[in-house]
Amino acid sequence: MPFVHMYKRHFLFLTIINFTLMSFEVTILGCGSATPTSHRNPSAQVVQVQDRSILIDCGEGTQVQIRKNKIRMQKINHILISHLHGDHYFGLIGLLSTFHLLGRDKDLHIYAPEDLKDIIYGQLKASKTYLKYTIHFKSLNFSGKNLIFEDKKIEIYSFPMRHSIEVCGFLIQEKTHPRKINRTAIDAFEVPTYQINSIKEGANFSTDDGREVLNSKLTFEPNPSFSYGYCSDTSYYPELCHSIKKCTVLYHEATFGNELEKLAKQTKHSTAKQAAMIAEQAEVGQLVIGHYSARYTDLSILLTEAKEVFENTILAKDGLRIILE
Amino acid sequence: MPFVHMYKRHFLFLTIINFTLMSFEVTILGCGSATPTSHRNPSAQVVQVQDRSILIDCGEGTQVQIRKNKIRMQKINHILISHLHGDHYFGLIGLLSTFHLLGRDKDLHIYAPEDLKDIIYGQLKASKTYLKYTIHFKSLNFSGKNLIFEDKKIEIYSFPMRHSIEVCGFLIQEKTHPRKINRTAIDAFEVPTYQINSIKEGANFSTDDGREVLNSKLTFEPNPSFSYGYCSDTSYYPELCHSIKKCTVLYHEATFGNELEKLAKQTKHSTAKQAAMIAEQAEVGQLVIGHYSARYTDLSILLTEAKEVFENTILAKDGLRIILE
Repeated sequence: MPFVHMYKRHFLFLTIINFTLMSFEVTILGCGSATPTSHRNPSAQVVQVQDRSILIDCGEGTQVQIRKNKIRMQKINHILISHLHGDHYFGLIGLLSTFHLLGRDKDLHIYAPEDLKDIIYGQLKASKTYLKYTIHFKSLNFSGKNLIFEDKKIEIYSFPMRHSIEVCGFLIQEKTHPRKINRTAIDAFEVPTYQINSIKEGANFSTDDGREVLNSKLTFEPNPSFSYGYCSDTSYYPELCHSIKKCTVLYHEATFGNELEKLAKQTKHSTAKQAAMIAEQAEVGQLVIGHYSARYTDLSILLTEAKEVFENTILAKDGLRIILE
Repeated sequence: MPFVHMYKRHFLFLTIINFTLMSFEVTILGCGSATPTSHRNPSAQVVQVQDRSILIDCGEGTQVQIRKNKIRMQKINHILISHLHGDHYFGLIGLLSTFHLLGRDKDLHIYAPEDLKDIIYGQLKASKTYLKYTIHFKSLNFSGKNLIFEDKKIEIYSFPMRHSIEVCGFLIQEKTHPRKINRTAIDAFEVPTYQINSIKEGANFSTDDGREVLNSKLTFEPNPSFSYGYCSDTSYYPELCHSIKKCTVLYHEATFGNELEKLAKQTKHSTAKQAAMIAEQAEVGQLVIGHYSARYTDLSILLTEAKEVFENTILAKDGLRIILE
């Protein structure tokens, strides 16, 4: 990370802050499918990007996984639920209750299929729980790629996939970072502080004697902007490639190996090879496969089959952290 | 267990069968309260009695606890849910789904507050799941002690307690065991095989020459019948003592220590001392305390406070097995 390194020797404090703000980290909390086992939790992962924590899916046991993986629970302000198969959301009501019991008062944003709203509120009503915080519930739209959240640093998109019930994938991407200041040049041209922000955004600089200094002389290229795609659950569905085109890292389900391709088709899941075909067609940077059928204790066969198509593939496992930098 | 021991040397196979049939075993799957932590699961326990497996409460993560504790999942045919606070039932929908995914076709009996029915069926509908097995849902009645299940070996009762929402405690008790055959006497009096069952039930025997042989000469005392009381969650509520009078083992919540008696009252929970007072008044055989507030990492203070009132107290912990014999 050049930006951090440049300042490291002189401004340790700044470096730490920048490192925090600029990290893009994914923690796999669960990469199993259908039923939790004693060694593999159902789907859940946390994306920590630009000081935002986003939980994607929330299978049973997710709140314990959050604790075990030392994720700061109350930093999670956005929860994306891909679909209403239990292994992707049965842990949500428990997490919401725990937020409440721990005194949360910050708003929470949930993006999920419409039916989840009644499920959540029905359970809160049964226990006479009146949450101390507000939930903003936004129903997913299952047609087309949709921008579901945006702020000054990131964008989150949903897009439909193909499964036995309606399901969305998600794409979380950083907006373009500001250009990095060339401190030597800034000092040499005596650029006033109040113009620094516009220069970071790409503006040129006019000196007092009317000379135009091109931005490229005052700045370095910005840090790369990263993006993360999440595709689970889905059958092999090449149409989703345009929604995750060239993303830095793609998580794609790989419930089965080649030997069960027929079963994958029947159950509307993917094989590891099919996940890799999507990664290749979408030209992503790296593929992470997961959502393994419980029948696989040795996952090397899935990895091998994926790598034959897309070399830069890794296996998800519970507790894995992927740091983009 | 005299009956088992008597046959041990000669009939190993019989001994094993009898041991299985006659055991009364409680496995604590979770003894935490409110929120699961990485070292304590929310409320759930399995009572295995006379070859029946009964699950009491089903907090989040129970199905994984069932696996970890090597309980045979599909043997569970009865589930009792005390009340609709999430730490007592959020794991139920996941367990029901797993039963289904594993191909269960045996009926399941659930005894729970009425509202749970809609919660369960709402979630099954959202995932378009049509269970392969039948659930018999029986709503709990919150007034008086009620026999909610009975077969030839056991009885299960519910009874109301006092909490912030409606809640039932449960009592599982064995019916009186048949008297044990005195093989030497049976052989000496040449009792025909077809009369053995009635003799086990207490009948006398008439010999061919008209002599009446008293049952006490043909049999030994039956094995003792055990009973198990479950009281969680409840404030200190002495009225419940008559429902669990003289039970062999009582599990009673002890969310707080003496120093938080006021908080216990406010939140309608009990202190360890109050749990012990219930045990003493109900004249139970042994007290197991649990449902600890997450603030207690060292539980010795709770044990000490309970033991000052009722000496035969032990601490529940996840994975504890209590075998009555």
